[in-house]
Amino acid sequence: MTITIRPATRADVGQILAFVQALAEYEREPNAVKATEADLLEHGFGESPYFACLIAELDGIPAGFALYFFDYSTWLGRPGLYLEDLFVLPEQRGAGVGKALLQRLAAVALEKGCARMKWEVLDWNTPAIDFYSAMGAEIQKEWLNVRLSGDALRRLAGVEAGELTERSGSN
Amino acid sequence: MTITIRPATRADVGQILAFVQALAEYEREPNAVKATEADLLEHGFGESPYFACLIAELDGIPAGFALYFFDYSTWLGRPGLYLEDLFVLPEQRGAGVGKALLQRLAAVALEKGCARMKWEVLDWNTPAIDFYSAMGAEIQKEWLNVRLSGDALRRLAGVEAGELTERSGSN
Repeated sequence: MTITIRPATRADVGQILAFVQALAEYEREPNAVKATEADLLEHGFGESPYFACLIAELDGIPAGFALYFFDYSTWLGRPGLYLEDLFVLPEQRGAGVGKALLQRLAAVALEKGCARMKWEVLDWNTPAIDFYSAMGAEIQKEWLNVRLSGDALRRLAGVEAGELTERSGSN
Repeated sequence: MTITIRPATRADVGQILAFVQALAEYEREPNAVKATEADLLEHGFGESPYFACLIAELDGIPAGFALYFFDYSTWLGRPGLYLEDLFVLPEQRGAGVGKALLQRLAAVALEKGCARMKWEVLDWNTPAIDFYSAMGAEIQKEWLNVRLSGDALRRLAGVEAGELTERSGSN
């Protein structure tokens, strides 16, 4: 079987959204996806994109994707690659697609002068934690993620709840 | 006392680096900062900046800063604001500078159509965790951060260790 990794194009937006939806279902949050193809087109393929994306194909059939953007380390004075989503369709696993995506991401990170790659893992996902650790990754248990959204974000900004009619949610 | 919050300009690069250094000393990592003014100038004030920065002044004197960039939620189909560094000089605390920086960041996030703000906190920093929780923030204890850097990153990319002569480090 042949694995091909390529950068996503505008034509892949439907496939990317299908992968995002499949990932949400895999994480047992089937109704969590509010994104539309128009959102992904605007935010990933416009003039100042918020993200970039790789598509993995197995014998020419889409099998998985990696969606990422760049963050920044003020201590090192260098950008980093932040991996937001990595997903391989359950029926296409075991062929090395996930590893191939990670290898290409590492190459992209080095090409861009990044000091590191970062991503998140669920604390009960022992096989993934072991896999990443064996790869030489560091699991940072002492740093907790803080998230502020919805009405709490609007209150902090001094905007009355309800004054904005945006979609709200918690991912 | 008057608090002023303003976007950083190229002329602030020396001050930003001084804040980054002061933050590293505060976190007891005085030798961790490898960044130079040239790095910050190139990465924050060039054509495609990796970060943006706010400077807080107390009666016209620099008192703190917030350095951030934009991430992306594939579930919501909207960008998010990621706060990398927030720091107020110890001798300037208690006047509301940190809160004012967070309020301005929340306003920036809403202006940019962000679904949320995210940042990290150390698990032993109970006063900060309580402060963020009271603000309505969610502390995500089940998600661990994974970081891959240095030789492990080069190995994954298929580059022999030592083949690149870049600076390496772990922040």
